[in-house]
This record gives sequence, C-alpha cells and structure tokens, in this order.
Amino acid sequence: MLSELSDEIRNGSAVVCVLGLGRVGLPFATVLARSGLKVIGVDVDKKRIDEINSGNMPFYYPDIEEWLRKATTARTLVASLDSKRSVELSDVIVLTVGTPTGIQYQLDYTQLHSVLRELEQAGLRGKQIIMRSTSAPGTATDILLPFLHKKLGLQVGVDVGLAICPERIVEGQAHRELYDLPEIVGCFDELSAQIATELFRKINSKKHIVVTTPTTAELAKLFTNIYRYVNFALSNEFAIWAEKYGEDIQEIIRAANFEYHRASIPRPGFAGGPCLGKDGFLLDNGTTFSSIVSTAWKLNEAIPQHVVMSVMAMLGPLYGKKVGVLGLAFKADSDDIRMSPSVKLVESLKAFGAEVVVHDPHVASTQCLREALLGAEIIIVATKHHEFRDIAPAIDASGCKVVYDVWGIYRPEEFKKARYMGLGRTSRKDMQSHTSPLKGLQSP
Amino acid sequence: MLSELSDEIRNGSAVVCVLGLGRVGLPFATVLARSGLKVIGVDVDKKRIDEINSGNMPFYYPDIEEWLRKATTARTLVASLDSKRSVELSDVIVLTVGTPTGIQYQLDYTQLHSVLRELEQAGLRGKQIIMRSTSAPGTATDILLPFLHKKLGLQVGVDVGLAICPERIVEGQAHRELYDLPEIVGCFDELSAQIATELFRKINSKKHIVVTTPTTAELAKLFTNIYRYVNFALSNEFAIWAEKYGEDIQEIIRAANFEYHRASIPRPGFAGGPCLGKDGFLLDNGTTFSSIVSTAWKLNEAIPQHVVMSVMAMLGPLYGKKVGVLGLAFKADSDDIRMSPSVKLVESLKAFGAEVVVHDPHVASTQCLREALLGAEIIIVATKHHEFRDIAPAIDASGCKVVYDVWGIYRPEEFKKARYMGLGRTSRKDMQSHTSPLKGLQSP
Repeated sequence: MLSELSDEIRNGSAVVCVLGLGRVGLPFATVLARSGLKVIGVDVDKKRIDEINSGNMPFYYPDIEEWLRKATTARTLVASLDSKRSVELSDVIVLTVGTPTGIQYQLDYTQLHSVLRELEQAGLRGKQIIMRSTSAPGTATDILLPFLHKKLGLQVGVDVGLAICPERIVEGQAHRELYDLPEIVGCFDELSAQIATELFRKINSKKHIVVTTPTTAELAKLFTNIYRYVNFALSNEFAIWAEKYGEDIQEIIRAANFEYHRASIPRPGFAGGPCLGKDGFLLDNGTTFSSIVSTAWKLNEAIPQHVVMSVMAMLGPLYGKKVGVLGLAFKADSDDIRMSPSVKLVESLKAFGAEVVVHDPHVASTQCLREALLGAEIIIVATKHHEFRDIAPAIDASGCKVVYDVWGIYRPEEFKKARYMGLGRTSRKDMQSHTSPLKGLQSP
Repeated sequence: MLSELSDEIRNGSAVVCVLGLGRVGLPFATVLARSGLKVIGVDVDKKRIDEINSGNMPFYYPDIEEWLRKATTARTLVASLDSKRSVELSDVIVLTVGTPTGIQYQLDYTQLHSVLRELEQAGLRGKQIIMRSTSAPGTATDILLPFLHKKLGLQVGVDVGLAICPERIVEGQAHRELYDLPEIVGCFDELSAQIATELFRKINSKKHIVVTTPTTAELAKLFTNIYRYVNFALSNEFAIWAEKYGEDIQEIIRAANFEYHRASIPRPGFAGGPCLGKDGFLLDNGTTFSSIVSTAWKLNEAIPQHVVMSVMAMLGPLYGKKVGVLGLAFKADSDDIRMSPSVKLVESLKAFGAEVVVHDPHVASTQCLREALLGAEIIIVATKHHEFRDIAPAIDASGCKVVYDVWGIYRPEEFKKARYMGLGRTSRKDMQSHTSPLKGLQSP
C-alpha cells in the first residue's frame, strides 16, 4: 500500500530498487544501503554486476568503495541483471539511467524508455517511482505521467507515487553531498512528496527538502548546472580577452574578486563532461534562437581547439611533432573521460598530425608520465589532477619547448627552460606588465 | 614634488581636484573632503556648480547630502567651472568624466579628451592623476601614457603619477562602499601606486588595496560589471523558459538556490542603466564575433519589448489603451533614468499606440500615482522602488485589467480583480502547477 510506504522506509522494511548503477546510481544505492534500507541495484552490464557483488567499485570513487564492500558483504546491497524480478521485490524504484544527448545533440531517452518497458512488465501498483536522472523539462508531465496513467492505468498519488528528485552532486563527492545537500522533490501530489522526503530523511534526518512541482524540479536542476556552465564560459571568454591584451587572467580575476562581494568570477579552464554541456541542450533544444546557453556552449567547446591554435601560433605546424598530454579525465581526481574536453584536445592535436602521448594517473589505457614527457616538444597539462601539482620541475627538465597550462596550476616562474603558456596567459611579448613588480595585495 | 605627495596626503595638506561632478565624482569628492583633504570639484554645468556650492545635491543621493552640506559650509569642498585654475591649485587630479558609448555603440571619449586638453594647459608636473572612470582596456597604455610622455614630455613615476582606480560602487551606496570596498590600483610604477594607496587609506586606513598593472585594473572593473550583467541576462533567459513551461521563475530560483552553495542565481528583472550595458561594449567592441556579452546584451535589451509583447498576447493590440507605468529610474530608490530599460518600455508602448502615463516618486517630470492608475487598463510596475511594495491593493482597486510585475515584487494572490502577470510568471492557463498546494520548504 502506497500510504504505508513512509512508515516502511522509516522502520527499514522497505526495499529500494536502483535502476542504473553508474556514477549517480551506484553511490546513491550504496548510501541508501548504509542508511539501513535493503537495496537492489540493477544494471545491464554483467561484468559490472559481478564486480559490485564482489564489493568492488567499477570506476574510481574511493570514498564510496569501503561502504560498498560493507553493504555487499552484509547483503544489504545486491546487484542484479534481472530488472523485472528486482522491481517486483521492491517498494521504491529509483531511476538513475543515462539521459544523454545524441550525435545531433537531440535528447536521447533510449535508456529511459527501455526501463519504462521493464517497469510495465513488472507492474508498479503500490510502489513509488523516484526520477533521479537529470531530465528535460516536461519529462514528468509529458512522459512519466501519461505512462503511469494511460499506459498502466494507475492514478498518481493513489495507486503509484512519483517524485522528480534530480541529483545535484559534484561527481566524486557523493559520500559528503548525499548527506549534506538539500533535495528538490517535485510531485503532483502530497503522498508522493511525503514518501520521497522520508527516503532522503532516512539518509540524513536533518536534510533540507524543497517540495515543488515536477517541472519546476526539472528546471531547477537544469538552471543550476547551466548557471555554472555559463559562468565557466564567461570566465573562458575573459581569458581570451586577457590574452588579447597581454594580461594574466589569473591576476585579473584575483584583483576583481578580492574582498569584493559582488564578484565571484570562476577561474578559466576546460568545461565539459557528461553533464554540464548536455544539460544546456535539454533546455535549449526548445528554442530556434541563439541563447546565452548556446553561446556559452560554443565558447566552452572551442577552448580545446583554442589551445591547439595557441601552441601552433607559438611553434608553427604540429605535424610530426610529439605532444605529451597530461590528464584525460574531464574532472580533477576522476577517471571519467565521457565528453571530456581533454579527449577533444587529443583528437584535435591528432587531426593536425601531432604524435600525441597521453598520461593520466586515473585512466588505465594511458601511458606513464615518463613516456608522455620523453622527447615531447610540447607538454599540455589538461586536467587538474592533484598528482600534477608538483611536477613542474620534471616537465621543465624534460627538454620540451613549450608547456601549456590549461588550469593555471603553475606559476610562470616555475619554468626556466620551457616556455610557459596558459589559458588566459598567452602574453604579448612586447608588454612588460607580466613581470611588473607591482602586483600584490596591500592589506593594512 | 611627486615624492612628497604621499606625506602631504597623510598630513592633509594635499589638494585634490575632482574633474566631473556626476554620480561618481561628487560622492567621491564629498567623502575625500570629509576625510580631511581640501577638495576642488570641477564641472561644465554652471547650474550644478551653484547648487553644490549652496550645499545641495543636484541629484537624489540622500546619504551623501548632509556630508556635502558640511563640506561646502566648511569650504573644504568647493565647486568650480574653472578647470585650468583648479588643476593648477591641486596636487592630485581625479578623472571622473563620463565614458559612455555613442549612438553606434562606439566608445565615446569626447569628455576624456576635453579634460586632457585642459590638463595640458594647466600643466601636470609633480601631480598625480587618478583615473576613476570606467575605461576601455588600453586606455592607460594607448592614451594616457602617450599623452603624458609624448605630448607633455613627462615621465610617469618621476615627473607625474598615474593610477587607474576604477570605481566599483553600486549607485546610491557611496556613503558605505567608499569606506568598505577594496580598491584596485593599476600603475606603471611604484611611486604612483604608493600615492594612490595613500589617498584611499586617507578615507579608511584599513582599506584593502590590490596593486596591479593598469590594463589589469581596467579589465578587472569591466569583468566585474560584465559578470553581473551576464548573470542578470541568464536569469532573464531562465524567466523566459519558465514562461514557456508555465512555471514560476521565482519558485524555480528559490528551489535551485535554497541551501545549495553552488547556485546563486539572481532574480530576473530589467538590466540596464548607464554602466552595465555599456561596459560590455567597452570590451566587446574589440571582436567581430558574437560573444557571451553580446548575447547577454541582446537578451537584456529585449526584456522591455518582451513585457509589451506579453501584455499584447493577453489583451490584444494596445492601440489607444491607457497604460500606467510605475517607475522610470533604472534602479530602485534612485532618480537616475539614463539608459533605463523602463524608458525603453515607455517608448515601446507608445510606438504601439498606447497612451502611457508614468509615475515615479523620484523623477520630478512624472505624474502622481493617482494619475497613473486612473482609468488605466494595464499597470506595469517597472522599477523596484520601495514605495511600490505596499501598493498592490491600490493597483488592484484601480479597475485595471492586467498588472505586470517586472521584478516579482508582489505575490499573485495579492490581486483579486486584476489579472497578475510577471516576468517569468506568465503562466500557461492549462497547467495547475501554479496553484499546487505542494510548494514549500521542508526543514526538519
């Protein structure tokens, strides 16, 4: 009975099924199990299911791994290939399937519809659906609601519960943020909102919950990510301006932000990955006009190529030259290379005929640091991994002509032999401002 | 002697000349006088000079007015038409001239060049120039430096001082922010930086000072304003999306921002005035490509017309209809109508044949509230003046058909007779989400 579900969550007798054991689903399933619920995780990948049932994370997420091991050992978390059976055994169904964009930037709901077909077979009466994936606005009203009501003949709030609860965690931080962040719960009815709230309060009884409409929940998630994405793009635009005027973007942003409460300009760098870029399209596909989001996308997507052009402006054609790229993941201290601007950088370098050797300490398919440095004319530091912080001397000693620092990890002075370049730091040679002795904060 | 100027500022014997007594220059001159310096203010407007010398503010700036009266009574601040004589008598020359854009959005430096001609006549040896106006990047290196060096034959840092210290105060807040905000001091040499620092420390000995290069100072100011302007545009874009999906932008932003440290999405509204829109051009004129700034500008500039279109979508042609517009200033609790989106709104309404009556409590040329409400079919609240906060009942009782709330000042429920519309709140009638009983924050 739907009306008893809140109590069952509270007393720990409810079973939760998490459909999709990726970087959103698996940490969530693990934390739910840790919170005292019985959890069944479902995925289509046999190898991944076996790994998880052996207590191993199938990707780099060190802070969750120990909890996963405990939960699978205690059998409070079980992974399965059988979605029908898993859904039948469960009371709360969490959808954490991928909602990517396709090759033409269209919304790709293949995984969602595949899961809905499985839900249809299993039956949903008396269960609560929680949509955790980022979704296009209208997904609840124009897809999920008709599916439940017209296809399954179930009334939301009576026969079945439905809540839109988009994840807003920074990848790699689920172990903290699943406990600390507020949750947005978008519902058509009170009962569904109450059940979803109970589920999140099981993780942390003090969690802030914002209850709102389903479409507002969808839009709030997209706006949050787009807000960040546009600000990263704006910072990258500022970096291009800094280059044009021969100034240092790191210095400009420091001066602008310092103790000034109206400016929190982010630092420039690659902006991409599987979420930020895509989320803009989920919203923007609804208009035929240029928008700030689309302009921001154009700018962020051009940054890897801009790096290539900047290096070529300095050294001439890259054809036949060896380039070492340090970092392939889209995010610091992650092994996630989906939609990574660094992958795009590597492809662009190869397109111009460069011989590219990639090193990423978190990506198994890449070479070791020594291989990447050996004989390279150009070294590009493309991911802000903490392992790269102290290797300026090694890069400088490698004999490369140019080091390009996408994230402003290093100070230009750290390079004695190699020429230092950085995003927003490609200085005009004729200006002395970079070596001005004046720079500094003066506090009384 | 330039090298003695710091001491003279500290002991109060230095004389400061502020060239341009507008909304930047006059508050700055007043606060400098209040800090114990002798100040001569110069303007080309005879009427303004007389007003100031009588102790009256020529525009609405209530928090500075008392200090102005004291300073003019004590003769520590004197206003003058004679720029040559005033510069000759002074040790520090502050430029607070207008740096607007022209009818084709080009940089208009007429006032700056006019002042430079006057400085040339007066002579500048031993004096310190402080550029306080917002300026295009390169103004220091490509205009001021050649002017001093090639035209006057003076060496910066030896014969004359030069500092780029852009103002970053919110209009109307100079009485607080001249004391509290950090200052950016952009200089070619140490002595100039030291003198400029001394001047600001005379206002507040604990003031944070960032010393940097002149071009970085110029860019830091522009980036700060553009950062805000783009975020306002993004919020307006979000408002348009909210309208498209029939949701309430105020509710979405509340849900997105609530206790979520990665989102500080601003509220939508008119974005314009004499600074924010223009500053984008000062930067953006240097590229032939679309930029985030230019897309943001297009969006912000379209909002007044969007309001007109939204009202017409509801009521049909405005031709011959009476529209009351409340608020003409671009900013809350200000009388400043320069580049005000509200002025653009009024012009757009008139272009469609509406009979527009404007009321603004701070703008003398407008009508009283009663006149604006009387017989109006449409009331548009266009400025966030505090005087408008409690007049929802009066608007509702006026008999108007539609009230359009640009800033989200009111709650829709406050209007019983009039139909409520707002930026980002023009709901699809067929959706019930607006009256959902679910909305609310749930904190434990």
